Amino acid sequence: MGILSGMRVVEGSAFVAVPLAGMTLAQMGADVIRFDRLGGGLDAKRWPLAPSGQSLFWAGLNKGKRSIAVDMKSEEGRELITRIITAPGEDAGLFLTNLRVRGWMDYETLTQFRKDLIMVTLTGDRRGNPAVDYSVNPALGVPEITGAEGSTDPVAHAVPAWDLLAGNLCVSSLLAAERHRLRNGVGQDVELSLKDVAAAALGHLGMIGDAALNDAPRTKAGNALYGAYGQDFVCKDGERVMVIGLTDRQWRGLVKITDTGAQMDALAKRMKRDLMQEGARWELRHEITEILKPWFAARPVAAFAEAFKAAGLTWSQFRSLKAALAEDQDLSADNPMFTDLHQTGLGRFPVPSSPVSFSKHPREAARPAPQLGMHTEEILGDVVGMDDREISRLFDRGIVQSPNFAVVRPAA
Amino acid sequence: MGILSGMRVVEGSAFVAVPLAGMTLAQMGADVIRFDRLGGGLDAKRWPLAPSGQSLFWAGLNKGKRSIAVDMKSEEGRELITRIITAPGEDAGLFLTNLRVRGWMDYETLTQFRKDLIMVTLTGDRRGNPAVDYSVNPALGVPEITGAEGSTDPVAHAVPAWDLLAGNLCVSSLLAAERHRLRNGVGQDVELSLKDVAAAALGHLGMIGDAALNDAPRTKAGNALYGAYGQDFVCKDGERVMVIGLTDRQWRGLVKITDTGAQMDALAKRMKRDLMQEGARWELRHEITEILKPWFAARPVAAFAEAFKAAGLTWSQFRSLKAALAEDQDLSADNPMFTDLHQTGLGRFPVPSSPVSFSKHPREAARPAPQLGMHTEEILGDVVGMDDREISRLFDRGIVQSPNFAVVRPAA
Repeated sequence: MGILSGMRVVEGSAFVAVPLAGMTLAQMGADVIRFDRLGGGLDAKRWPLAPSGQSLFWAGLNKGKRSIAVDMKSEEGRELITRIITAPGEDAGLFLTNLRVRGWMDYETLTQFRKDLIMVTLTGDRRGNPAVDYSVNPALGVPEITGAEGSTDPVAHAVPAWDLLAGNLCVSSLLAAERHRLRNGVGQDVELSLKDVAAAALGHLGMIGDAALNDAPRTKAGNALYGAYGQDFVCKDGERVMVIGLTDRQWRGLVKITDTGAQMDALAKRMKRDLMQEGARWELRHEITEILKPWFAARPVAAFAEAFKAAGLTWSQFRSLKAALAEDQDLSADNPMFTDLHQTGLGRFPVPSSPVSFSKHPREAARPAPQLGMHTEEILGDVVGMDDREISRLFDRGIVQSPNFAVVRPAA
Repeated sequence: MGILSGMRVVEGSAFVAVPLAGMTLAQMGADVIRFDRLGGGLDAKRWPLAPSGQSLFWAGLNKGKRSIAVDMKSEEGRELITRIITAPGEDAGLFLTNLRVRGWMDYETLTQFRKDLIMVTLTGDRRGNPAVDYSVNPALGVPEITGAEGSTDPVAHAVPAWDLLAGNLCVSSLLAAERHRLRNGVGQDVELSLKDVAAAALGHLGMIGDAALNDAPRTKAGNALYGAYGQDFVCKDGERVMVIGLTDRQWRGLVKITDTGAQMDALAKRMKRDLMQEGARWELRHEITEILKPWFAARPVAAFAEAFKAAGLTWSQFRSLKAALAEDQDLSADNPMFTDLHQTGLGRFPVPSSPVSFSKHPREAARPAPQLGMHTEEILGDVVGMDDREISRLFDRGIVQSPNFAVVRPAA
C-alpha cells in the first residue's frame, strides 16, 4: 500500500512529461487511469523499441497504470471520458493532461460535471504553441553552452530534461491543489508550459541574471564543471574519469590524493590567486588540469579507484549505459529500486520503481505497463458504474477496446 | 496567498536540488526557513556571479525564503536548529535536507522532539556516497550519447538535469507524506538519491531496456531528434533553426510547407519505407535532411518564420541566452512568470516566480532571496518562541547572525 493509496487520477496524455507525472503518482500508490484513443496515442510507438518492435518508451512511462481505450471521435466516447474524469469520490476528480483538447475536454466544460475538479494542463509555451525539449533548448541558448570549449557548433543534450522536470512539477502542482481542496473544498485549473518550466529553471540557476548583467556570460566549457573545478581525464588504461573539486573538501581531497599540493601552491603564487576560492579554480582550470593530467595518464583506474573511494572523493568513470548495466550494482536488482521484470513482448531487464523510499511504506516492486485497453472493462464497471450489458454494447459498437475484445472496423 | 499558504518547511541545504525544492514550495506560498552556518553554506559563493561578485546562483535558488544563520558547531546552535525543525504546528514539522548530518540531525534523533516529523533527505547515491550531476552522468552513459554523430568524445550537458529533477521529487515526496500524515497522523523518513533519480529516469524513458535488449543501442546522433525526425539547419542569413517532425501532424506540416512531398515520396519508394512511420523517419534522417537542406539554405529565417508559425509547426531558432533575453517576450516581464526585479548587490533583471499558475490563486510576483540571516531575529521569536532578552543573548554570544548584528569573533 503506497503512500498515496486511495487517490484516483485520470490521465489523458502523450510523450514524456504527463505520462511521467501519472506514473510517479502510480508508483506512490495512486490509482492512475490513462485513457487513449483506439489503437493508442501519439506515443504508442515511440523509440526506443524492443527487438520485437514494441515501444520500450511507452512501457517505461506507463508502468503501474490502468489503461482504457476509447473512440474519442464519437460523442459517446467523449461522454465516457467525461464521466471517468469527473467520477465521484473524495480522492478522485484529479485530471492530468497535455492533450489540450478544446471544447468538451476543457476545464470549463468538465467542471459542469464536477465542480471541484482539479485539472493540470501542460502546454508547449504559455500561449499554447507546441514545443518539445528539442525546440525549447535552442530558443533558450542551452546548445550554445554545451560541448567543446571554443567550438561554435550548438550541441543538443540527449536527455529530455525539461519534460522530466515539467512532469514532476505536474505532480507537485496536483498534490498542492489537492491539499488545498481538502481544506477548502475548491477545485483548480492548473496550467504550466514546457518553455516556462525551462526558462524558470535557467533563472533559478542564476543563468538569466548572468546573461543579463555580465558582458561575458557563460560559454562552452567542454566537460569542465562550471564555476569551480571538475574535469575529465584519460587514464593509462585508456579509460576516462571525471573528478570533482566543487567544495573545499573535495578540492583538498583531490590535491592530497594526487600529491599535487606543491604544484598547486606554485600555480597560486605565480597567478596571485587563492585556489581555496572556487572562482579561482574555475578561472585557472586549464592550468590545474595540466598539473593533474600526468598523474592520471600514469595510472590505470584500478590503481586509484579504491583510494579515491576511501577518501570520499566525488568522481566517476565514463562508460556506456550498456557497460554500466553490466558493471554497476546500482543498476541491478541489488538496488531495491529495480526489479528484474519479464514483460511480454519486451523481454527481461531491470525496471525501476520510484526512486523515493518512505519509511512507513515498504517500497513497491516495479509493475509493468498495461497493454492498451487492458482495464477497459473494469474501469467502465468500477469507475463509470456500468453493468455488463452496457459494457458489452460499447464493445460491440466499437466505442471502446481491450486486448480481449479487438475492435474490427471497416477501413475509413 | 499561495496555494500552500500556512505550511511551514525547514530547509538545511546547499547547491541545487534541495534549495530548489524549498523554493518551489515557497513560490507556492509555504513559509520556508533555510538555516545556514555562520558565514553561509557551501553554495554561498557559487557561480554565476553578478558584477559585484555576489552569487546569482544563491540568489536564484533561495527566493522568497526566510534565512537564519546559526553556529552549527556549538551545542546551543544545534539545539536551536532542532527546535526550529521540530517546532509545533499542524502544518509544520516538515524538513528538507541534503546535508546528511549524522547524530543530532538525523531522523531518529529529531523524532524524539517531534514524533510526526516528515524529513526528506537527498543523498548522492543510495549508499550515501557523494555525487553531483557531473559525476552521475558519466556513470550512466549520458555523455556517450551526447554530441556529434561518429565522435567518440563524451560530452557533458550544461544543465544540472538530475539535480533539478531530484529537487522536484523532494517536493512531491514531501507533499505526499504530508497528505498521508494529515489522514493518518504519522510522520515519515523519506530518502532518495541523485543517482537513483537519474537511473530511474533513464529507465522510465526506455533507455535501460534499450541498452539491455538491443545489440546496437542508442549512440550519438548530433542534434537529431532521437527516434523520429528533427534536425537543425543553417539558413541563408547564417541563422540556425531546429525543426521537428515527431508526430505525423508535425511531419506532414514540415513536408507541406517546404514543398518536398514529391522528393519524400521518391525517397520512401526507393528505400521501400513508409515515412509516416516515425522509425523510418529516424532511420532515413540523413536522406531526409539532404532533401530539406537546400530549402533552408535558400531562405533567411524571416522568409518562413511567419508561415511556420501560422502552420503550427514545432520549430525554433538557435540563439544565445543573452540574445533570447533581448528578443523573446517569454523571457521578459510580459510573461506573468517574470518580474523585473532590482536586487541589492546584484542589479535589475527578469526574475522568475513559479512556472505554475493556479486559477484560484493569482500568481505571486517573484520575491528576492533573503540576505544571509536576515530573518534570524523573527524566526527565533515566532518559531522558537524566544523573548527579546534571550535573542539578544544569542547574538551577543555569536551563536546566531544577522546582517544587522554581525558576528565579530577572534580568528580560530
